[in-house]
Amino acid sequence: MSDRAVRGGHLLDATTRLIGVGGLGAVSIRAVAAEAGVSLAQVQYYFPTKDGLVEAAFEWHSDRFLTDLSGLLEADPSVARLRQVVDRWLPLDRAREERTRVWLAFVQTATLTPPVAARSAELDQAVRDWLAAELLSLAQGGLVTAAVPAVTAAQLLALIDGVCAQALSLPVGRRAFLVGQTIDAFFAGLTVTGAGG
Amino acid sequence: MSDRAVRGGHLLDATTRLIGVGGLGAVSIRAVAAEAGVSLAQVQYYFPTKDGLVEAAFEWHSDRFLTDLSGLLEADPSVARLRQVVDRWLPLDRAREERTRVWLAFVQTATLTPPVAARSAELDQAVRDWLAAELLSLAQGGLVTAAVPAVTAAQLLALIDGVCAQALSLPVGRRAFLVGQTIDAFFAGLTVTGAGG
Repeated sequence: MSDRAVRGGHLLDATTRLIGVGGLGAVSIRAVAAEAGVSLAQVQYYFPTKDGLVEAAFEWHSDRFLTDLSGLLEADPSVARLRQVVDRWLPLDRAREERTRVWLAFVQTATLTPPVAARSAELDQAVRDWLAAELLSLAQGGLVTAAVPAVTAAQLLALIDGVCAQALSLPVGRRAFLVGQTIDAFFAGLTVTGAGG
Repeated sequence: MSDRAVRGGHLLDATTRLIGVGGLGAVSIRAVAAEAGVSLAQVQYYFPTKDGLVEAAFEWHSDRFLTDLSGLLEADPSVARLRQVVDRWLPLDRAREERTRVWLAFVQTATLTPPVAARSAELDQAVRDWLAAELLSLAQGGLVTAAVPAVTAAQLLALIDGVCAQALSLPVGRRAFLVGQTIDAFFAGLTVTGAGG
């Protein structure tokens, strides 16, 4: 993320609030200026286009997500640690739901704008690569069965994205059940019996 | 789907074309009237609100999807048949991509509008129930291993939705690889070795 995007953090906060209330359709350079209480020119200085604004908002949330994880990632790799990482992704409370809504707006933007699509595909692949490295290290330690870590990683990321998309239609109280049937069951299938983790 | 929605089919076609080009943000009662070459009042007669229009467009595509499947579903249940059903869901060509784009607009609408969210959750559950019944019948025939069909069904639907969301960011030619790593691998894990199917 560029310095410019970091300095525009208050604009990305405003963008997130607009997406939370009205989705991608509520975002415009003008609406963000009004929401953040700055001039149109100031928004345009940081983010000349709406697409760039949505992309920056998603990357900013992704960066905050990684910062939130940094404490967790100081521990040694374990199944429990990976499960906790995945958990922070899922819209199981208001704060995590915010990031999911921004993700959905980003996906929507990607379907309309080839450069954003390319960035989205690149970010997806970076996450798959991270998950695959994690699964490889767990498999080498005998903690999970993952014959081809890249395949298991791709399945896990698709599962997470599908659960995120479906969960937003469910009342918050009914989301844990969906996570149980999908993510929890996936982890149960992955874990070597008795290996702990 | 109501008779009214069926009679409004040409309007849902117009809605689909608008979503294909500009996403949910391109849909309005006015834009649909212009695209379909009818009066504003005529669109409002069938669909008083934009949300209702997007919901009807999704249900209309779902109905067409089921009609497309009817030939396939005359055959006896088999793993190959289930795999073909899933395949018709995935945005691997222009026609299937259209339905995926309408699905994404519907998900987006659901996150903003509680009655649409309730309908979305209901439709997701109906699909899970269908997949679970199919998996149960295959498991009873010894063709797949699915200890708890409802869980396997929930995983499969989440996987499909995640792949759909990710695939739209990929060039069409790179989508089959993603499907291979996710859906194909899932089916490989499900199939009883040597059971054919």
